[in-house]
Amino acid sequence: MHLITPMANLVIAPRSSFMRKYYHHKNPITLECGATLPEISIAYDTFGSLNDRRDNVIWVMHALTADSDVSDWWPHTVEKGRFLDPDKWFIVCANVIGSCYGTTGPMSIDPVTGKPYFNDFPDVTVRDMVACHRLLAKHLGIDRINTIIGSSLGGFQAIEWLVTEPDIADRAILIATDYRCRPWLAAINKAMTMSIEADSTFGLRDREAGARGLAAARAIGLLSYRGQTAYDTTQDDIDTDHGLFDRRVHSYQVHQGEKLCTRFDAYSYMRMSHSADSHDIARGRGTYAEVLASVKAKCLVVAITSDILFPPSYHRELTTLLPHAEYHEIDSEFAHDGFLIENEKLNNLICDFYSRT
Amino acid sequence: MHLITPMANLVIAPRSSFMRKYYHHKNPITLECGATLPEISIAYDTFGSLNDRRDNVIWVMHALTADSDVSDWWPHTVEKGRFLDPDKWFIVCANVIGSCYGTTGPMSIDPVTGKPYFNDFPDVTVRDMVACHRLLAKHLGIDRINTIIGSSLGGFQAIEWLVTEPDIADRAILIATDYRCRPWLAAINKAMTMSIEADSTFGLRDREAGARGLAAARAIGLLSYRGQTAYDTTQDDIDTDHGLFDRRVHSYQVHQGEKLCTRFDAYSYMRMSHSADSHDIARGRGTYAEVLASVKAKCLVVAITSDILFPPSYHRELTTLLPHAEYHEIDSEFAHDGFLIENEKLNNLICDFYSRT
Repeated sequence: MHLITPMANLVIAPRSSFMRKYYHHKNPITLECGATLPEISIAYDTFGSLNDRRDNVIWVMHALTADSDVSDWWPHTVEKGRFLDPDKWFIVCANVIGSCYGTTGPMSIDPVTGKPYFNDFPDVTVRDMVACHRLLAKHLGIDRINTIIGSSLGGFQAIEWLVTEPDIADRAILIATDYRCRPWLAAINKAMTMSIEADSTFGLRDREAGARGLAAARAIGLLSYRGQTAYDTTQDDIDTDHGLFDRRVHSYQVHQGEKLCTRFDAYSYMRMSHSADSHDIARGRGTYAEVLASVKAKCLVVAITSDILFPPSYHRELTTLLPHAEYHEIDSEFAHDGFLIENEKLNNLICDFYSRT
Repeated sequence: MHLITPMANLVIAPRSSFMRKYYHHKNPITLECGATLPEISIAYDTFGSLNDRRDNVIWVMHALTADSDVSDWWPHTVEKGRFLDPDKWFIVCANVIGSCYGTTGPMSIDPVTGKPYFNDFPDVTVRDMVACHRLLAKHLGIDRINTIIGSSLGGFQAIEWLVTEPDIADRAILIATDYRCRPWLAAINKAMTMSIEADSTFGLRDREAGARGLAAARAIGLLSYRGQTAYDTTQDDIDTDHGLFDRRVHSYQVHQGEKLCTRFDAYSYMRMSHSADSHDIARGRGTYAEVLASVKAKCLVVAITSDILFPPSYHRELTTLLPHAEYHEIDSEFAHDGFLIENEKLNNLICDFYSRT
């Protein structure tokens, strides 16, 4: 079989700057789809210390394939003087349910069978992710968050939390995200899951199952994260010798696909993709206007000008629907990935928001 | 194995309005990659009649998965009063080498083995496609073309012909295309071919091999042909009941993928994708400016405002590099597919160009 690279271990080794923590929730939880898990673990990281007034909590929600170590996947944020300054804030980030970085997901051991769930793990929604965050917050004794921050799928969770528990947060920062999964995102997701399902190893009870399909899915995802300008600017091979049919960017796509396979698995990826498809803040709750009107937090909505996955127009809509929101754009050529790359611009925007609100 | 639908037959039944023709070139041809084919067939269609002065030829080049029946894939063009009016013009369109609509390709019988080539068929370049067009033109006794028309991969061929035989055409119409394959297009192509290769049936000596991968590749391609606005506008399911993880656009993506599998095969698709990767008008010929300066035809360059695959900026560059070119934009929400959909706007633009040049 065509298995490219070994999959990530279930639990990533903790980095030196912190120690990954786990909350073992020993009671059953019922997911939105109706399935029940007998117990779950939630992996999380914290940075800084909770102050005596317990009012310095920042909760960061991660995107599709990230983990709870925000200091790793979001460069130059968990640093002195930045918007996640650990000297000032108590920062919490938890791995979402259905992922593979320590929180219960397809690679976790099913206590009933004693073996990994693999494809028996149920699909989870953004609402399920937030329900787990709320369990963790309760466990940590956190009943008030200064600022909730989420980008992309992390923004989906942030909006969900603001709606389901309007008193939880004073402020929220919603970056490169949306209040519902539009057809465009669902179409991209479907192309990715079709690629995974085209790999006939997907379905085998093996961590490496579907790895080639996953690599292709990642290559598709990257198209939407980076867009035309970033590819044309950073991957041009106009002045290099290459074979008639070989292009420099081909290696880039393959490399990025294989790289994801060293740290993620196709089963967890499928759950993350489906969770994004499920995102609809108003499902069963009323109109978008009614539902989003319940948000009490002051919101900073940030779009990236070149983002083709979540274009600025989505964010302007969101800002209009939120009662206390301001809209800002970051001018960048890096499209959706701009939220990870433009940390200087983002830091200025957020620190300014902190000082004003 | 997970084979979705039967593949297209090698030769498509001719439609009533015309009779598909074949030119059997009985001599070996050597491709740019160095491989030699002992003989080839070229399938082509013609519409209208060659006049006595032999000066009313329009040659249309087709895009990735189209065939030689331009009256079928380009709606409202081969009609009275339109830019391919068969009462006025003698219109030629030939299936490209490496495709599966009658011109020699992976599904053709290898005369050496008596069996289909499948993956033994060599990769072809845009230059190889045009070399075959030139063989056909010679066979038809056409040594002068009034207007060459190409969109997308068809535009690649058109530009190639204009450069390699500057006296062949008086005019050319280049729509939603480019003079080289940029990293962005090559990255999309790679995501598509990775999906096909993720399907472990790809490689089997069977017409249906790689069908699931091909369906995923088509779903990826569609993202780039239609873009965010077209998906969000035409596929919204905001007011419809659907499962937690099901979206209307998912069925659309699957349907389009399966539909392609009924008329195309993964081996031919792979060749088409690689041929696009190979496109570089200046490879081994000098600078882009030098090479494109040799074009003698009057050119109409047409971009579609919302095209994310070949954005307007590419076309403005091309127009600058061509000696006798004018640039026009078609305002459309249909992105790259706009060249097939906006036939009224396109017709006005082209008929006006005819009358002025």
